[in-house]
Amino acid sequence: MADKKTRTLSELGEFGLIRALTDDIILRHPGSRKGIGDDAAVLDHNGFLTLVTTDLLLEGIHFDLTYVPLKHLGYKSVVVNLSDIYAMNGTPLQVTVSIGVSSKLSLNAIEEFYKGIKLACNQYEIDLIGGDTSASVNGLIISVTALGTAQPQQIVYRKGAKKGDLICVTGDLGGAYMGLMLLEQENKLFRKDPAYKPQLDGYQYILERQLKPEARKDLGRMLLAGRVKPTSMIDVSDGLSSDLLHICEASGTGSRIFADRIPVHSETRKLAEQLRISPNVATLNGGEDYELLFTVAHEDFARIQLIEGISIIGMMTGREDGHLVEFEDKSTILMEAQGWNAKQKWEEL
Amino acid sequence: MADKKTRTLSELGEFGLIRALTDDIILRHPGSRKGIGDDAAVLDHNGFLTLVTTDLLLEGIHFDLTYVPLKHLGYKSVVVNLSDIYAMNGTPLQVTVSIGVSSKLSLNAIEEFYKGIKLACNQYEIDLIGGDTSASVNGLIISVTALGTAQPQQIVYRKGAKKGDLICVTGDLGGAYMGLMLLEQENKLFRKDPAYKPQLDGYQYILERQLKPEARKDLGRMLLAGRVKPTSMIDVSDGLSSDLLHICEASGTGSRIFADRIPVHSETRKLAEQLRISPNVATLNGGEDYELLFTVAHEDFARIQLIEGISIIGMMTGREDGHLVEFEDKSTILMEAQGWNAKQKWEEL
Repeated sequence: MADKKTRTLSELGEFGLIRALTDDIILRHPGSRKGIGDDAAVLDHNGFLTLVTTDLLLEGIHFDLTYVPLKHLGYKSVVVNLSDIYAMNGTPLQVTVSIGVSSKLSLNAIEEFYKGIKLACNQYEIDLIGGDTSASVNGLIISVTALGTAQPQQIVYRKGAKKGDLICVTGDLGGAYMGLMLLEQENKLFRKDPAYKPQLDGYQYILERQLKPEARKDLGRMLLAGRVKPTSMIDVSDGLSSDLLHICEASGTGSRIFADRIPVHSETRKLAEQLRISPNVATLNGGEDYELLFTVAHEDFARIQLIEGISIIGMMTGREDGHLVEFEDKSTILMEAQGWNAKQKWEEL
Repeated sequence: MADKKTRTLSELGEFGLIRALTDDIILRHPGSRKGIGDDAAVLDHNGFLTLVTTDLLLEGIHFDLTYVPLKHLGYKSVVVNLSDIYAMNGTPLQVTVSIGVSSKLSLNAIEEFYKGIKLACNQYEIDLIGGDTSASVNGLIISVTALGTAQPQQIVYRKGAKKGDLICVTGDLGGAYMGLMLLEQENKLFRKDPAYKPQLDGYQYILERQLKPEARKDLGRMLLAGRVKPTSMIDVSDGLSSDLLHICEASGTGSRIFADRIPVHSETRKLAEQLRISPNVATLNGGEDYELLFTVAHEDFARIQLIEGISIIGMMTGREDGHLVEFEDKSTILMEAQGWNAKQKWEEL
C-alpha cells in the first residue's frame, strides 16, 4: 500500500484513516468479543456483557462556542455516547468525561458545562465515574466514554441484516442538520452586523435537535414489548447514507430506500425550502439526529407497524444490487458514502 | 462558595477544579462500586470487577513534538493508563484510543504513533477495542481509556492505609523528571543555535524514563507470590509528594518519609548535580515515573523485604502528625501538595 502513504488525510477521510490504522489489529483476550467496527465494543465478562464507546469532541471542529451554550454542549457530549450504547440494544450505565480547558473559560463556564453533563446523567440514569481534567493551549476538548450492558440474547450488531429485511428508522431525520444551517446562517449575519438580532423564531424543534439532542432510550423497551428483535442497528450520527452503508458493509448486503418514506419534520422541510436546499440533502447526508436505524426480518412487518414512531423506509437487497435511493417519480440515485460531518471535518482543514 | 466562582483556574489548580466539579456527584447504580477519586473506577458486574481509567494528553501541555518521537508518544499514552490499572492491583485487558490530528501531521506520522500504541498493546497483552478519530484545529490530542479487571479480594484502593503502615515504592524516582529537564535544556540550546548537536550521551536511562516509561506489570504477581497485600496503592504520576498525599487524604492518615531512603538512579543524581538542582526536587515533586507507591501493614515488614526492587521509604502516621519529609540531618520539611505537572499545566497558561 505504498500509495496510501502519500495520500493526505483529507483524501483518505475519517473512515479511510481508521481503516488504515486499525486493519491489522487482532484481539487476544476471549473477553474482547467485539472490537473496532460497531457502535460500541463488546466485552464478555463471564456472560455479563460490557459495552464501551468513546467520542472526542473538539472546539472548532464539532462545535462552535459562539452559538452553542456550554450547558447544552455538556448534555450533548454525554447523549451522543449513550446513543451508541442504545444502538447496540444495550443499557448505558456509566460515563467518564475528560476535558481540556483553555484559560479563556471561567470556572463558571466550566460549571455550566458540567451542569449539562449532570443533567444528562440524571435524565438517562447514568453514573459519572471518572475522567481527566487538563489545561489546554487552544480551545475546549471533550472526551467522553460510555459504558453499558446488554443481555447476550438482546444485543444487536451492525452485521446481521439479510436481503429482504425491512429498513426502519425512529423519529425524523435531517432536523439537526437544518438546525446547524440556521445557526450558521444567523451567526454569519450577526458577524457582519453586530446590531443584527438572530431570527430563530419558529425553529425551536430543529434548534433543539442540533443543540440538545436526545438518544432513543425508549426503542429497546418498545421492541421488547413488541416482540421484535432487529437484525442490525446503528445510530444516525454521520447521516442516513453513511450509517446505512455501515450496516450494509458489515452485513454484506445492498439496500434500497424510498426518499418519500424518510420521516421529515415540518420545520426541517420549511427551512430547507427557505434556504433552497432539497430536504433530501438534510435527511440523507445530514447527521447528528441520533435516531436509531435498524433492520428487521420481513416476517416482523406486522409487528413493527404496531410500534409507534417507527418508519419503514426501504429494504435490504443483495450486495450486487448496490445502494439505491428511489424517488417518487421512480428515478434512483446511488447512495453516497460520506456523511457531512466527516467530510466537513477533514476538508475544511 | 461564592468566592470560588471568581477564582481563576490556575489559582484553583487541577485538583481544586476536579473537586469543584465533582463533589456533588452521587452514584445510583449498585454496579458503580467506586467512582471518581482513585486510580481507576471500579464497576461490579455480578462479582466480576471492571476497572476503568482515562487520560487526556494534549500537545503543548503534556508533550512537545519537537523532541518526543511519535512512536514513543503512542507507547507512553497507553502505558500511563495501564499504570492506573496496576495501581488498583488489577490486570489491564483493553484500551480505547481517540485522537484529534491536525493537518500538519502526515499519515506516516500517525502510523508511527499507532505503531507505538500497538507495541504497548503487544508488550502488555492488551486489546485495542475502539476509539474515535477526528481532525483537530490545533495540535495533537490523545485520549486513552483503559479497562481491566481485578479479583475482588486482591483490589487495592487509595484508602485503607493505617497509622504504622510502611510506605513502599518500586524502582527509583525522579528519573522521568530529570529526563524532561535534559530534553528541555537541549531543545533550548538547539533553538538558539540550529547547528548545536544535542548532548544526550550518558543519559539513556532517564531519557527512556521520560520518553518510553514502563508500567509496573510485575508488582501484582510479586506481591501475590510474597503473600503481601498492600493496604493502599497509587501510581507515581504527579510526583511522590502529590501521590502520597492522595493516599493520606483517602486513608485519613499523616505520613513521614525519609529523603535518603528514596531510591534514585545514578543518572538522575548526576544530572541534578550538573543542573544544580537538589535530587530531592526530582524525587519528591517530579512526576511521570509510573512506579507504584503503596503501603503495607507493619507485620509484613519481613515479607516485603524479601521482594526485590522495593524500597521502604517511610511510615504512615496519625492525621494530626501532618506530612513530613525527614532528611539525613534529622531536619524535616512539610510535604507539599502539588506535583510539578499540575502546577506547570495551569500556571503556564
